[in-house]
Amino acid sequence: MFEKEYDVIVVGGGHAGAEAAAAAANMGSSTLLVTMNLQNIGQMSCNPAMGGIAKGQIVREIDALGGYSGIITDKSAIQFKMLNKSKGPAMWSPRAQNDRMRFAEEWRLALEDTPNVDFYQEMVSGLLVKGNRIVGVRTSLGVDIKSKAVVLTNGTFLNGLIHIGEKQFGGGRAGERAATGITEQLVDFGFDSGRMKTGTPPRVDGRSLDYSKMILQPGDENPEKFSYLKTPILTEQRDCHMTHTSALVHDLLREGFDRSPMFNGRIKSIGPRYCPSIEDKINRFADKDSHQIFVEPEGWNTVEVYVNGFSTSLPEDVQYTALKSVKGFENVKFFRPGYAIEYDYFPPTQLKHTLETKLIDNLYFAGQINGTTGYEEAASQGLMAGINAHLKINEKESFILKRDEAYIGVLIDDLITKGTEEPYRMFTSRAEYRTLLRQDNADLRLTPRSFEIGLATKERIERMEKKQKESDSFINFFRKTSFTPEEINPILESVSSATVRQSDKLFKVFSRPKVTMEHMLQLDAVSDFVKENEFNSEVLEQAEIQVKYSGYIEKEKNNADKLHRLENVKIPDGFDYSKLKSLSYEAKEKLEAIRPVTISQASRISGVSPADVSVLLVFLGR
Amino acid sequence: MFEKEYDVIVVGGGHAGAEAAAAAANMGSSTLLVTMNLQNIGQMSCNPAMGGIAKGQIVREIDALGGYSGIITDKSAIQFKMLNKSKGPAMWSPRAQNDRMRFAEEWRLALEDTPNVDFYQEMVSGLLVKGNRIVGVRTSLGVDIKSKAVVLTNGTFLNGLIHIGEKQFGGGRAGERAATGITEQLVDFGFDSGRMKTGTPPRVDGRSLDYSKMILQPGDENPEKFSYLKTPILTEQRDCHMTHTSALVHDLLREGFDRSPMFNGRIKSIGPRYCPSIEDKINRFADKDSHQIFVEPEGWNTVEVYVNGFSTSLPEDVQYTALKSVKGFENVKFFRPGYAIEYDYFPPTQLKHTLETKLIDNLYFAGQINGTTGYEEAASQGLMAGINAHLKINEKESFILKRDEAYIGVLIDDLITKGTEEPYRMFTSRAEYRTLLRQDNADLRLTPRSFEIGLATKERIERMEKKQKESDSFINFFRKTSFTPEEINPILESVSSATVRQSDKLFKVFSRPKVTMEHMLQLDAVSDFVKENEFNSEVLEQAEIQVKYSGYIEKEKNNADKLHRLENVKIPDGFDYSKLKSLSYEAKEKLEAIRPVTISQASRISGVSPADVSVLLVFLGR
Repeated sequence: MFEKEYDVIVVGGGHAGAEAAAAAANMGSSTLLVTMNLQNIGQMSCNPAMGGIAKGQIVREIDALGGYSGIITDKSAIQFKMLNKSKGPAMWSPRAQNDRMRFAEEWRLALEDTPNVDFYQEMVSGLLVKGNRIVGVRTSLGVDIKSKAVVLTNGTFLNGLIHIGEKQFGGGRAGERAATGITEQLVDFGFDSGRMKTGTPPRVDGRSLDYSKMILQPGDENPEKFSYLKTPILTEQRDCHMTHTSALVHDLLREGFDRSPMFNGRIKSIGPRYCPSIEDKINRFADKDSHQIFVEPEGWNTVEVYVNGFSTSLPEDVQYTALKSVKGFENVKFFRPGYAIEYDYFPPTQLKHTLETKLIDNLYFAGQINGTTGYEEAASQGLMAGINAHLKINEKESFILKRDEAYIGVLIDDLITKGTEEPYRMFTSRAEYRTLLRQDNADLRLTPRSFEIGLATKERIERMEKKQKESDSFINFFRKTSFTPEEINPILESVSSATVRQSDKLFKVFSRPKVTMEHMLQLDAVSDFVKENEFNSEVLEQAEIQVKYSGYIEKEKNNADKLHRLENVKIPDGFDYSKLKSLSYEAKEKLEAIRPVTISQASRISGVSPADVSVLLVFLGR
Repeated sequence: MFEKEYDVIVVGGGHAGAEAAAAAANMGSSTLLVTMNLQNIGQMSCNPAMGGIAKGQIVREIDALGGYSGIITDKSAIQFKMLNKSKGPAMWSPRAQNDRMRFAEEWRLALEDTPNVDFYQEMVSGLLVKGNRIVGVRTSLGVDIKSKAVVLTNGTFLNGLIHIGEKQFGGGRAGERAATGITEQLVDFGFDSGRMKTGTPPRVDGRSLDYSKMILQPGDENPEKFSYLKTPILTEQRDCHMTHTSALVHDLLREGFDRSPMFNGRIKSIGPRYCPSIEDKINRFADKDSHQIFVEPEGWNTVEVYVNGFSTSLPEDVQYTALKSVKGFENVKFFRPGYAIEYDYFPPTQLKHTLETKLIDNLYFAGQINGTTGYEEAASQGLMAGINAHLKINEKESFILKRDEAYIGVLIDDLITKGTEEPYRMFTSRAEYRTLLRQDNADLRLTPRSFEIGLATKERIERMEKKQKESDSFINFFRKTSFTPEEINPILESVSSATVRQSDKLFKVFSRPKVTMEHMLQLDAVSDFVKENEFNSEVLEQAEIQVKYSGYIEKEKNNADKLHRLENVKIPDGFDYSKLKSLSYEAKEKLEAIRPVTISQASRISGVSPADVSVLLVFLGR
């Protein structure tokens, strides 16, 4: 039935699969997206939101690289917030609430609009492998489809098992079937597999809630957006609301603990630590008698509401009774109960930096199959797998982002070096160089690299180059333009900053903590320069950040350079760690198992301490 | 978990379930719609179109009664055609192509916007019955939900079994699970159940088709719409296309016949006669070496295309090879193969005219569970079941439409009187009084009746009354206004109709076959009257039809009256048919099994001939 050999087959149509298909196709690979249900492409299986702390930066990086998640998010957003705006720009994190139906529809239409993407609806239940190389997939109906590379993005579907209270049933998502066959075949091939768990809260009828008892959570007054391209900015937004659990709610939930699959041993696998179920929160933080609940609309027009913070797999009667005691939920009507789901994953230490598996050539894994959690984490892996699958089959150099280049680099390096035994989620704290990895400069960091490999479009690189050129010229203007004490002192006084006696360069005074771009624009020279050059707000923001944080940025760049030198200290193939007596026992074991190729990689292995790194450095003679 | 007792629970969210929920709720019943997947409400499981011959009339009737199908169709239409416009108005049949995603979204939002409708996502796997009365449902998770009435609209989900070539697997629809439990319980209770079969064609990638080789099928130049309310009229439309199978295509399909579940005995149940699979058409009409294929877009923006006329359950490689030989499909890419599905139904002779089951009080069946096929047939049954469930629990008189009142009346009377052993589809030929049951007058026929029972809104009845008043006044104008030969003869000559010598009433000359409203409007008196009264096009059309077809309409009304008199001839309870020797053996058997209450009902039983009816009439003494 499929006569032609595809370049790339992507299995799964979620965030990872959709990005993988788009990336491979846009680079020129003939790509087939195979999914169990074409109507469910781009589903938001859990919360109707994209971005957030560290995750927002990832979406910006995906966009800068030419992925679609940012564009889709902008087109389907119903609310936008820049989180952490009161902190430094390294912490600024964009987040959007989305219309769930629109998000999926936009993904579907975007993929249909991508010339090299074909679609096929069927469950993939087997892989075609020749020697150590993937050559295609087999569907559950027995259709063989050939390809040069395969990207697996199975999400929670591999042997998915849904738990609600004491009941359990097979399924990949509520109302959808589980997928079978792939895990078993990969294990036969020598892969290690494990089980993970995740969960989702009840969906309820917004008409049954009393919002007057909750705290309003509106969007930003001046909403921004995710994509560096020209996508719509919100002119209208939908509100979210906040409420809280109480000691009574916790007591009511506790009454169901003996029937909880989390506590009676039925669920054995580990869930996402930073996205725990409500029963987990009560159990772990027994002293707290209140937790936040965010009430999020599922779209522009639907009455369906997502109860963020109330993820649970307690019996549905317990869910109901407890939620009814939350302020504003007194008359709540359920659309469907929350549930937990267990699924197969493959410890990601079995992957290369390209997300290709070590055991089977040209087979790539992305998303939850690698033990991660989160739409953004999944999407970015899909993008990188799609890119690298295309590059590999075209015998081109692989595309790897370093830890000082992108959160995506941190994510993948963490996964393949440290592995993960619980669902891995990104945080700013996981990045050593977060001052470099800001949401405002993802285009400057990554678009040139993506353009070089043929993914980012001309439009994208031109927009980025214009922004770079203009902000450089603006920064240069601050470096070379002087002020007079008469001009500047009123401004300095207004922010209680020490006045000056002599003229000096603008750059110097602009670097002071309380002086902002807004103040600078009060100077005629500055505002004239901006008008003359028609700088937009992005350029102003970029120049301001680079001037004001130049010290921090320089420092981190130096640190990163030091690391790159470490990176260069190679560990010889087959190096015998047993002869280094000063290495800890644990370090020896881990180093022998993972066999890092550089000291830098060795330093990131969990169990390898700074002392161990020093021993290696001394021995390998820097 | 569900503390309250609902008035009505509707199981299933397809065309039947959605109409049932809307009707019961709009009449004032607290209603719960339970479905396996809330994201699949209002799915068009098969072709992306509503209406067509006889079916279009049903949608107009649903709308006239206050159902939603017409409104949803108008809001999501991408093309409109009035079929049979060259024939008499009794044959005019509206048909729309729809945007599949939009159609489902509009249904979901319309139901959410209906105050008395609650939603719950779960599989119903059991019914709660007390004595002979339904008191609620039980979900597969064991949640009991109480209600005064239940409407089952399970579509193809009850023990659904999907066939593609030699493979078969459980499922209610491609990519969705089957439902279990209900059939078994009803059979235990004494219900007869059977199996039916239906099928669907492949969906393909519109980008892979060569439309230049096909025949363009555009929409009407002046598209109309379904709803009598103010819904949008299309200003832009999407084209369909037509192509044909060939002897070669048929040969290629025949090569798979030995692997066809239709021919190797694997599928035992009967499919829809008038919507046969392509293999069935080739087999039954062996002399024909070409069949029509209609290529229908699935929406405004999607590239997915529905291959109408190519329904099949042959192995997917056979589907592919054959379809590739159809003109324009040389490079076709499949989105998913066609398939057949077998599912449980309950012979509808087990129902009353209200669609309530005879065995269990307050339990109603609607849609494919009754052995029908078609969205429109399902929707109309859902509407009637929802209405009657509400009326019953409020101890009000049931709402039954007669055969001369509505196609819906014909449909339900056929079902419960004759039963059906193959999927039942509506045709104009099934109606004895099709001149009365026109698409243009469904509002005049049905809105007053629906308003009376509290379903049709005030807006609806007012619009209908205005239309009726205005068309009556216009017809009256034609009856009382005279023409002069000088005025009328040029018109008569222009259509080669005999000229007149004397003045006469306009009605008389307007009744002539070739004289149309357009001609009448050339007369100053007529056009002045129209302008003065600000008649819209609906009024003009209604007046024209009622003037020009007054003879036929009168005749059918008389026939219907005769039937109503027959209707009055009651057959005594427990009447002993065996003593009527002149009755045919078959008639005796059927009459004894079905035990009709009137001679009219007896006359409609299949196997009871006109001669048998005469015997009954003579005996029961008219």
